[in-house]
Amino acid sequence: MLNLAEPTREEWFQSIEDNLDTILIDHAHLEKRAASTALSMVFRYTSRPGLPRKLGLVVQEEMDHFVRMLDILEARGVELRKVDPAPYAGKLVKQIRDHEPAKFLDRLLVAGLIEARSCERFSILAEKVDDPDLADFYAELFEAEANHYTLYTGMAREYFPADEVKERLAELAELEVEALKAGRDLPRLHSY
Amino acid sequence: MLNLAEPTREEWFQSIEDNLDTILIDHAHLEKRAASTALSMVFRYTSRPGLPRKLGLVVQEEMDHFVRMLDILEARGVELRKVDPAPYAGKLVKQIRDHEPAKFLDRLLVAGLIEARSCERFSILAEKVDDPDLADFYAELFEAEANHYTLYTGMAREYFPADEVKERLAELAELEVEALKAGRDLPRLHSY
Repeated sequence: MLNLAEPTREEWFQSIEDNLDTILIDHAHLEKRAASTALSMVFRYTSRPGLPRKLGLVVQEEMDHFVRMLDILEARGVELRKVDPAPYAGKLVKQIRDHEPAKFLDRLLVAGLIEARSCERFSILAEKVDDPDLADFYAELFEAEANHYTLYTGMAREYFPADEVKERLAELAELEVEALKAGRDLPRLHSY
Repeated sequence: MLNLAEPTREEWFQSIEDNLDTILIDHAHLEKRAASTALSMVFRYTSRPGLPRKLGLVVQEEMDHFVRMLDILEARGVELRKVDPAPYAGKLVKQIRDHEPAKFLDRLLVAGLIEARSCERFSILAEKVDDPDLADFYAELFEAEANHYTLYTGMAREYFPADEVKERLAELAELEVEALKAGRDLPRLHSY
């Protein structure tokens, strides 16, 4: 359903489980960036029918997740410190072509793939973390991010021919796995 | 309560009432910019205790207002076209000093003053527009934006000495009226 070219390796959770608080901080920053991505598309593509409303709601949801992550951090006595993100999103954003309308298509699909991978990772966290409240939170977020994936790729199919979307999504999905691999050594939500 | 240096002139509503749809579009764009302002402060001042949570909630509320404005426009058959904003916010932003921590104080107070003026204008719209649903909507927004004014100025007092805040707020409030006057000829939410 999520169209990821490769599932997350079994080893990923082991590589992060001793750094769970860092993952939670990394995740808080990620929600903030996800809100910013959606908001910047509202600014750039205001004239696309339906887009401002759909992505306006995404901004609200991502900020809701951000605020709830802050509450989780506070409850655990963890400060929202700066954490260098995995190179993942930066690598993927570099794949966005610089001319319109290809740029618009790529922005939708890259945003969709990041949501898809986050969603997959949240399902792993929901299953494996010990804290039952945190596991419930990740189960809920799994669903929200799956909806965002569907929304972004659905928007792509709304504004571009289905064949073009399918082909570009397959290309970007391969590059998405490469982008994950670039973060091999850091324990992060988007490390390999 | 709002600390505006001058109330809106009686003539303002007459100057915009024949262009109410333009005002509504202008207002939708304004909510989007208000969300962006708050979000960019979350990015810039993440390490200030309490700030990310407070402004994260502001982002959510402004985007909620944005989406509801889109619904209002759609119900009236009005398209969200581009509308050149009044020079108001641009003029005020130019007053923000370029060195920290003065820049942080000014960003909080300028954001607060824009919320205060919006709030005052919403109360005028709530009282004067014919459409009862629109009047109710503006009455509700009046309250939300008053809370945002209180939040921004309250944050200023949390991070800076009360005297410094009071003095700079009084200076900026004078400049706020000058910024309004720069938009004398356009029917806008922040025209004179």
